[in-house]
Amino acid sequence: MDLARENGIEFKFEASVGGAMPILNFAKETLPGNEIKSILGILNGTTNFILSRMTVEGSSYEHTLQEAQQLGIAETDPTQDVEGIDAACKTVILANSILGIVCTLKDVAVTGISRITSEAIDLAKKDGYLIKLIAEVSADSLSVSPRLVREDSPYAVDGTLNMATLKTDLADDVTVVGKGAGSIETASAILSDLVNIWKSKN
Amino acid sequence: MDLARENGIEFKFEASVGGAMPILNFAKETLPGNEIKSILGILNGTTNFILSRMTVEGSSYEHTLQEAQQLGIAETDPTQDVEGIDAACKTVILANSILGIVCTLKDVAVTGISRITSEAIDLAKKDGYLIKLIAEVSADSLSVSPRLVREDSPYAVDGTLNMATLKTDLADDVTVVGKGAGSIETASAILSDLVNIWKSKN
Repeated sequence: MDLARENGIEFKFEASVGGAMPILNFAKETLPGNEIKSILGILNGTTNFILSRMTVEGSSYEHTLQEAQQLGIAETDPTQDVEGIDAACKTVILANSILGIVCTLKDVAVTGISRITSEAIDLAKKDGYLIKLIAEVSADSLSVSPRLVREDSPYAVDGTLNMATLKTDLADDVTVVGKGAGSIETASAILSDLVNIWKSKN
Repeated sequence: MDLARENGIEFKFEASVGGAMPILNFAKETLPGNEIKSILGILNGTTNFILSRMTVEGSSYEHTLQEAQQLGIAETDPTQDVEGIDAACKTVILANSILGIVCTLKDVAVTGISRITSEAIDLAKKDGYLIKLIAEVSADSLSVSPRLVREDSPYAVDGTLNMATLKTDLADDVTVVGKGAGSIETASAILSDLVNIWKSKN
């Protein structure tokens, strides 16, 4: 990014976080004048699918992971997703590019979902909460960990969806939700970068 | 808008729909290359507050409206909000400015929330649904009416929040959620317009 700035060229990577969900361009183009203080988001569709299914079906983590693998949603070696590493990489991208926090993967405190039990999910549900793998990006905290979120909050997105809430000084909380994966969907994010670069040159 | 285009000047009105929730700039700046086929949204915070409270408390429409009036969320004459007229005006703005559908208020089929009973809300809730006042903008339909939405969908936003789901050809469904009202929040939408105009001139 520094190198691109020095050379007066644009370096864009909208598709790298949230797939078709606009997040980098969203923060830059639709909230100018706002200071973005922190971002809380669900940045990994595979783990959100597993947690959503465990919530609806009361099934175990191991069983639901197998189901996700059979559907092609989880990979044969699911470590990168279920241990939160994929979400942590995206946390680093958001921290550097939106909040200007210079950091790398080793600065993110990461806990995955492999120890979440169906009993924990049931217990949360009885009180109106869901368990979601939440990435937090702020000056005080860079983390990915399972957290309780209210059922009626913007964090309660289902299946493989991604979401992010930008906490700002003027517009307050603004949330965006979209498809975190898919070939055409992700290509559309690359296309939006290309169109925006073309626009800025013309 | 035509007059502005003919004269080569910009005419922006982000704050007119969804307050601090980016919707007009969101559609134009973050989804270029996408065709937006339709928009489904909750564009009136007062009615969403009333329906949310009726759902949580099991209270009647009349009682909840009074509560909203005491809190300053509903006006003394609540007609514009509860009969869906405010949401219909915003439907017309989205139709003209995002989908290019030339229309006026009389083209929108409008039903408000004043006949929604707590019994209807309870019945929906038992099946995992909520009743929300949904605005639809598409080539086939311009309407504002109470509809059933799933509890675990992006439409399930609480209180005075606004939301809009843009159905696109490439990115699929993309949703934005934010504060529909508030002085500082709405001012931030105007500020984003001003910054974007400044950027486009420099």
